[in-house]
Amino acid sequence: MSNVVLVAGAGPAGLSAAYALASVGTRVVLVEKEQRLGGAPILSGYARLVPSGEWAKDAIGGMVARVDSHPLVTVRRGCTVETLAGEPGAFRARLSDGATVDAGAAILATGFTHFDSINKPELGFGSFPDVVTTTQVEQMISSGRGIRCLSDGRKPERVAILLCVGSRDRQIGREWCSKICCTVSCNIAMEIREELPDCHVYIYYMDIRTFGLYETKYYWQSQEEYKVKYIKARIAEVTSNGEKLLVKGEDTLVKRPITIPFDMVVHAIGMDPNVDNKRIAGAFGVELEKHGFIGKANAYGTSGASSRPGVFVAGAAAGPETIDDSIAQGNAAAMAALALVNRVAAPAAVA
Amino acid sequence: MSNVVLVAGAGPAGLSAAYALASVGTRVVLVEKEQRLGGAPILSGYARLVPSGEWAKDAIGGMVARVDSHPLVTVRRGCTVETLAGEPGAFRARLSDGATVDAGAAILATGFTHFDSINKPELGFGSFPDVVTTTQVEQMISSGRGIRCLSDGRKPERVAILLCVGSRDRQIGREWCSKICCTVSCNIAMEIREELPDCHVYIYYMDIRTFGLYETKYYWQSQEEYKVKYIKARIAEVTSNGEKLLVKGEDTLVKRPITIPFDMVVHAIGMDPNVDNKRIAGAFGVELEKHGFIGKANAYGTSGASSRPGVFVAGAAAGPETIDDSIAQGNAAAMAALALVNRVAAPAAVA
Repeated sequence: MSNVVLVAGAGPAGLSAAYALASVGTRVVLVEKEQRLGGAPILSGYARLVPSGEWAKDAIGGMVARVDSHPLVTVRRGCTVETLAGEPGAFRARLSDGATVDAGAAILATGFTHFDSINKPELGFGSFPDVVTTTQVEQMISSGRGIRCLSDGRKPERVAILLCVGSRDRQIGREWCSKICCTVSCNIAMEIREELPDCHVYIYYMDIRTFGLYETKYYWQSQEEYKVKYIKARIAEVTSNGEKLLVKGEDTLVKRPITIPFDMVVHAIGMDPNVDNKRIAGAFGVELEKHGFIGKANAYGTSGASSRPGVFVAGAAAGPETIDDSIAQGNAAAMAALALVNRVAAPAAVA
Repeated sequence: MSNVVLVAGAGPAGLSAAYALASVGTRVVLVEKEQRLGGAPILSGYARLVPSGEWAKDAIGGMVARVDSHPLVTVRRGCTVETLAGEPGAFRARLSDGATVDAGAAILATGFTHFDSINKPELGFGSFPDVVTTTQVEQMISSGRGIRCLSDGRKPERVAILLCVGSRDRQIGREWCSKICCTVSCNIAMEIREELPDCHVYIYYMDIRTFGLYETKYYWQSQEEYKVKYIKARIAEVTSNGEKLLVKGEDTLVKRPITIPFDMVVHAIGMDPNVDNKRIAGAFGVELEKHGFIGKANAYGTSGASSRPGVFVAGAAAGPETIDDSIAQGNAAAMAALALVNRVAAPAAVA
């Protein structure tokens, strides 16, 4: 029996789970495969986060710092969980470095993998240096280098952002929507217009999914204050005339083919299941849902329950997710894990 | 000083918060203004929930039962919080029945108010009995009566579902998106097709926002398996020719006016801020955001923090929200409240 909680993954979901548990006196072992904590927002160098507008390095960096310095959290970097034997209240994990961890509960916060645009060759990534991804634009902003064409360092005068690259696309086996790329793209469009007020920014979309309160803060504001232009279109290909990139497709509102020149084309890349999910599912003994994300039970019973009792899941491990919801789910999974290890510990506490 | 947590509102968010706290040994006072617990899914008679497919009366009913029977939860029905004085760790709430409650932390899970379609008179609600809301259709299904025209009880042969009624609409001061109506409408469309296989179901939309994994489960399945038809359109008005309802608008894909006859027209109504939010904000001393929902701090610090320390917010009180995310946020707010009351209780526990 153990009242330690094992948390796998130190992105927003895992960090929030670890801190929440530690803050109520529960010991946590936090296992992170990378050498650095923070997950995608830190490892991929995100700039200002949606919807807070805070810099990722401050917002998520702060979450890293308070976990890293907490006496009740043991962090194991560059390490993965190989097997999880036992049952709720009495698990034993074997780690990749050979160590074992006894834990009463486990939380899977193993996140996602960014879609690799190389899998959509007709959209020009890999062929033309000025075709980049939203992640690369985030890095241009967060590094302070600013929005520049990678080919020659010039400031682009015309930028196209293509939504749903690697999402809602049966051709490449990615039928799901990645949930947050629309809003992130509206945000990036405004950041570009802020830095380069003379730059024209176009967003090519199927549907604009700035759900809930993102609608006014991102979709409306980007149009009304920042003059970002939206084109409902099916994109056929991105080519080059030697001077400009050419985005070719069909404007679905006027049902006509359109070819528009740009200096930079940005792929709003989707969220794939973590490439390690098969291994992770095997190690933790949990099932994947049909797209390859970690399967999640209904919400009405135990929050964040996976298919295996005592193993909980939070954040983008279970499907495309926002940072805020990942954090809420991390806390929720922590609550469920706490209830479990408390129940286990109760007899001893009474005695 | 008190280690009780006061929870206001007994919908999915409040129920999950209350149960989570009780399950780790924390006493909860749950205040609900209605005589019945369960929030919108129970009080409005929802049918099968998104995305679980479980009946609301079972799923949310189960959450009600375990809270209602928990020895650590005191439920006060037909009651509201009038004032909350004091500070984190030592609040004193005065209730509408004159009682006082000492609490270390408070969770606002006061939910939303369904948009009243009477505020869009041009869309026929109130004028024509066969113009109904998604909530009424949920009730037709959950009651077992089935999908029937309210005018004469006949089975409709043609049903139109109009998205964004009371959402994304500046004319009536509701610029936000209500987040879940698209997915709920896809679900309802499939339920209608299931019950009435000969009935044609059309969904009129601006954007289809079946974000994340809802994309395949609702949008694609509704088209491919259930043959639900989608029309991108701006609706001008709903009228009647005495026999059929007429939906008039502009098909935005072909840029042409369209008038299509239906037997039943369903408004996919949005989520307004709780009509009591000004009173609630005054009572709890918290700020509202610009649309009138309860304001929520950034997620990176304390999960579900409102503008007032020690008062947390969860679910649709803070903006349009899904049931699953409301439950996660309820658990997350419970975690934050627990950390606070534990910290308060710690000196005594040590002594």
